[in-house]
Amino acid sequence: LEKILLNGELVNRKIAIDIEDRGYQFGDGVYEVIGVYNNIAFKLEEHLERLFESAEKINMDIELTIKQLKEKVLKLKKENLLKDGLIYVQVTRGITRRNHAYLDNKIKPNLIAYVLHQNRLPSEVYQNGVPVILTKDIRWLRCDIKSLNLLPNVLAKQNAIEKGAFEAILYRNDNITITEGSSTNVFVIKDKTIYTHPANNYILNGITRQIILDICIKLNLKVQEIEFSKSFLLNADEVFISGTYIDIVPVSRVLGEDVEFTNQKSITFKLMKELNKLTMSI
Amino acid sequence: LEKILLNGELVNRKIAIDIEDRGYQFGDGVYEVIGVYNNIAFKLEEHLERLFESAEKINMDIELTIKQLKEKVLKLKKENLLKDGLIYVQVTRGITRRNHAYLDNKIKPNLIAYVLHQNRLPSEVYQNGVPVILTKDIRWLRCDIKSLNLLPNVLAKQNAIEKGAFEAILYRNDNITITEGSSTNVFVIKDKTIYTHPANNYILNGITRQIILDICIKLNLKVQEIEFSKSFLLNADEVFISGTYIDIVPVSRVLGEDVEFTNQKSITFKLMKELNKLTMSI
Repeated sequence: LEKILLNGELVNRKIAIDIEDRGYQFGDGVYEVIGVYNNIAFKLEEHLERLFESAEKINMDIELTIKQLKEKVLKLKKENLLKDGLIYVQVTRGITRRNHAYLDNKIKPNLIAYVLHQNRLPSEVYQNGVPVILTKDIRWLRCDIKSLNLLPNVLAKQNAIEKGAFEAILYRNDNITITEGSSTNVFVIKDKTIYTHPANNYILNGITRQIILDICIKLNLKVQEIEFSKSFLLNADEVFISGTYIDIVPVSRVLGEDVEFTNQKSITFKLMKELNKLTMSI
Repeated sequence: LEKILLNGELVNRKIAIDIEDRGYQFGDGVYEVIGVYNNIAFKLEEHLERLFESAEKINMDIELTIKQLKEKVLKLKKENLLKDGLIYVQVTRGITRRNHAYLDNKIKPNLIAYVLHQNRLPSEVYQNGVPVILTKDIRWLRCDIKSLNLLPNVLAKQNAIEKGAFEAILYRNDNITITEGSSTNVFVIKDKTIYTHPANNYILNGITRQIILDICIKLNLKVQEIEFSKSFLLNADEVFISGTYIDIVPVSRVLGEDVEFTNQKSITFKLMKELNKLTMSI
């Protein structure tokens, strides 16, 4: 039987929560998803560090050290014999009588983690790329926090899937700036330079995003972390999205727009190869 | 022992949910809070109608009629002997393997309701008004949906409370327009005209807000549902906030600004009196 981690104990999957768990009523919590490749939790510490950063940004105290949490998460992985897939960790602020304010800073946070056995995407996806749609970014202005308030992301992704796309790439309505995907970061390549949105309050600074930027430095590729527009993306040479466990996925075309990125993916493939080395050699 | 409603059954308060209940992982759900005055659930039908509207806006099917849900909610109220307080109802999209997209539209939504025994605010609050702060509105652009994505509201309200205020009144950063409070609607009165933000995607169209507008018509008071700025609010004659069960609460001052609304609250008091008649005479 599948076990999940609930405040340090391994318990059955169906958990008893209080109706007033603030995660359930307000999305008052933060989370991480960690990829497991060939039995190794990739960049586990970086993910847990970001979890603690997200928690701090919403003034929540996880009441554990990163080291303690790491041990528990690894125990969960082992117990569930997870070889390839994902580990999901979330921390909600805890239980209060329902009130927007949490007031009492002695609330005990609720930490839950579980594993998802999951196959990698088919190799054709990496070879041929995926179609995307462009959608308005209607999210809040603290997208740097990996919070449980994901309804706009849900609606954007569902919209993409229903239209036959793999991902919705978001743009802010006011200035047509491309921010990121509904659950991925976005990179475009033009004249051998790689562009991605700066890591500010409009995007989540993905762990995979950070690794890609490191790879670019290593490969002496020119990178610009600056804002760019929808039309800049549509005129790019190559476009790709990145995320935990999907790693780097090339974008083949933008549905509804008369544009395909099929001619060449040379830099994208180069980055994919380097990232693969990292995830597979660990 | 307190009973809560879980998919039509009255069960104990601590409920078993699946970790992959989309309400818990994405805030993928909607809710309502209904005030109970002297044993009567005030405007219950209007609240349930709005619940169904919110659900529809996120493409969620509640799988009940309003009439069926009303019966269940009244049974919950009766079972818990709730005379004065609140009924909370939430519907989450249901359980899926974790994925932003919900894909399968055959997911069974999870409906939960419970009661909060709660005293009204002290009468001094209604007499003297409350201090507020002004804070940037960083929420998403579909505030017309009463969703479980409430983290920005939580952070704003907590900020207000920590500063000694009762509520945070929000303004959009780009154009300094006052939208609403973190859990209330905002009205300002200037030269005997009542102003409030139009009911579009930037605010939640409160049931109490709607009743107030009806009262204004009845009393022949001039109303403008238009955008107004921070400085317009600071120069108003009267300001008040409204919400379920708090009804109408006058604003006495804006912390951090050299302004008090203590001189007169004549129109506010007139509206409060009419609203009181409605909630107390039912």
